[in-house]
Amino acid sequence: MNISRVHSFSATIQYKGTNYNGWQIQNGQAGKTIQGEINYALKKITKSELIHTIGSGRTDAGVHALGQVIRMDLPFMIEPIGLQRALNALIPADIRILEVKKIDESFHPIYNAKWKEYIYCFSTSTIISPFDRELVAQYPYEIDIAAMKNGGRLFLGKHDFCNFSCTGTEVKSTIREIFEFSLEPINGGHPWINLASSGATANYYLFRIRGSGFLKQMVRLIVGALFNLGRGKIKETDIAAALVAPYGVKKVGFVADPEGLYLAEVHY
Amino acid sequence: MNISRVHSFSATIQYKGTNYNGWQIQNGQAGKTIQGEINYALKKITKSELIHTIGSGRTDAGVHALGQVIRMDLPFMIEPIGLQRALNALIPADIRILEVKKIDESFHPIYNAKWKEYIYCFSTSTIISPFDRELVAQYPYEIDIAAMKNGGRLFLGKHDFCNFSCTGTEVKSTIREIFEFSLEPINGGHPWINLASSGATANYYLFRIRGSGFLKQMVRLIVGALFNLGRGKIKETDIAAALVAPYGVKKVGFVADPEGLYLAEVHY
Repeated sequence: MNISRVHSFSATIQYKGTNYNGWQIQNGQAGKTIQGEINYALKKITKSELIHTIGSGRTDAGVHALGQVIRMDLPFMIEPIGLQRALNALIPADIRILEVKKIDESFHPIYNAKWKEYIYCFSTSTIISPFDRELVAQYPYEIDIAAMKNGGRLFLGKHDFCNFSCTGTEVKSTIREIFEFSLEPINGGHPWINLASSGATANYYLFRIRGSGFLKQMVRLIVGALFNLGRGKIKETDIAAALVAPYGVKKVGFVADPEGLYLAEVHY
Repeated sequence: MNISRVHSFSATIQYKGTNYNGWQIQNGQAGKTIQGEINYALKKITKSELIHTIGSGRTDAGVHALGQVIRMDLPFMIEPIGLQRALNALIPADIRILEVKKIDESFHPIYNAKWKEYIYCFSTSTIISPFDRELVAQYPYEIDIAAMKNGGRLFLGKHDFCNFSCTGTEVKSTIREIFEFSLEPINGGHPWINLASSGATANYYLFRIRGSGFLKQMVRLIVGALFNLGRGKIKETDIAAALVAPYGVKKVGFVADPEGLYLAEVHY
């Protein structure tokens, strides 16, 4: 870009990923992206093509965000509050800009992140409330939650996650550090829906994981491995082996459905 | 229909109305309907055109149901639990059959109802969480909730609601009785979304109304009148006048947006 000086902003954004092909603009791929919608709005606001955006992480098709952080470079200064309002007026209602801040040009939403937290919400019910169907993954099997909690401990610490990432993505290193995780039952659904509805919203669980960074589909592959563990299809030793073995070891997981996954928070 | 004997069932169903043109099949009108989806599935299950369904009430385009009750007439007997499972396997995930019961042929879901309850969920926030956008009506104004609660009392009891119904529908009588209502603040959003998100889900309110029956768009016109009252655009005396005046009095309300409305319960 031929800009003598850029004006940089960060934004915290929330989106329901159901109708999008993920955060990042995909060259040649069909489907709308969150970044595509935001870039389109920024070009309208600035009446310029000289805009640039970077997200703190790609989220895949159907994956949601509660606190995605992005950087926006514009060719001139705009008041942050005015920029937030203008964006929210122009982008679809399933993407909301929660906050805009003026930032230093040196800020990078990926490299400056200290940790990221993802949550994965799933239900073991055979019936999911129609109001939650796009926001909760359904895994309608008898699973041993205690075994999954025990197995989750294996991921803590620094590991080579090459066996827990989608192939075909180029990264410098597949080593990541997991700081914390939890798996707990949670009351499902909207409060006003629970009040009147039947038992259709029971048996929800929330998996949280906080780490230095995550490879492509890493959280969903970890959840898939824990699902397999919870059903007795694999043992803890299989997960432990996959965490030390070189790339190509027997698959211990599968890519769990996207609708339960949320990029919850990025911490700087 | 030329059926020597029908086998009748009732079903309690839940649906997210966003993608539907209401409950009832509309001849000549575009758009999918909930009834259309259920009839289609029943014809597949019975391999017969000799099926018939009746809902306890039409819900308009975009309106939801937590406990719509319907009657289904089939040409032969099916176990209720098997019928429920077969229906849930064939209909879209935004409609769920919560329960199926064998019923007497005399049961009529409209005429046998003792009361119905609707809820209307709205937010006064300027930003609505992307996860709630289709489930909550946005009314981003400063409103006097106490004044609305006081005004709501005027609707209690038996009244001619001709000025609170959509014109063009033929009904024998426009007299209905309201038994109860409430208007309270409520914690918005899904519990797991609240945990991590910003203040975007604040300022939710829940309006409940229970009555002998409701005319077309009656709840939304009542809510619209209360919104006008809450903003000081009309006075309590305007509502009182509309409840005693013949059809055609000055409009006190407007048809509030459909996405906040839920048919919550039908009691027999």
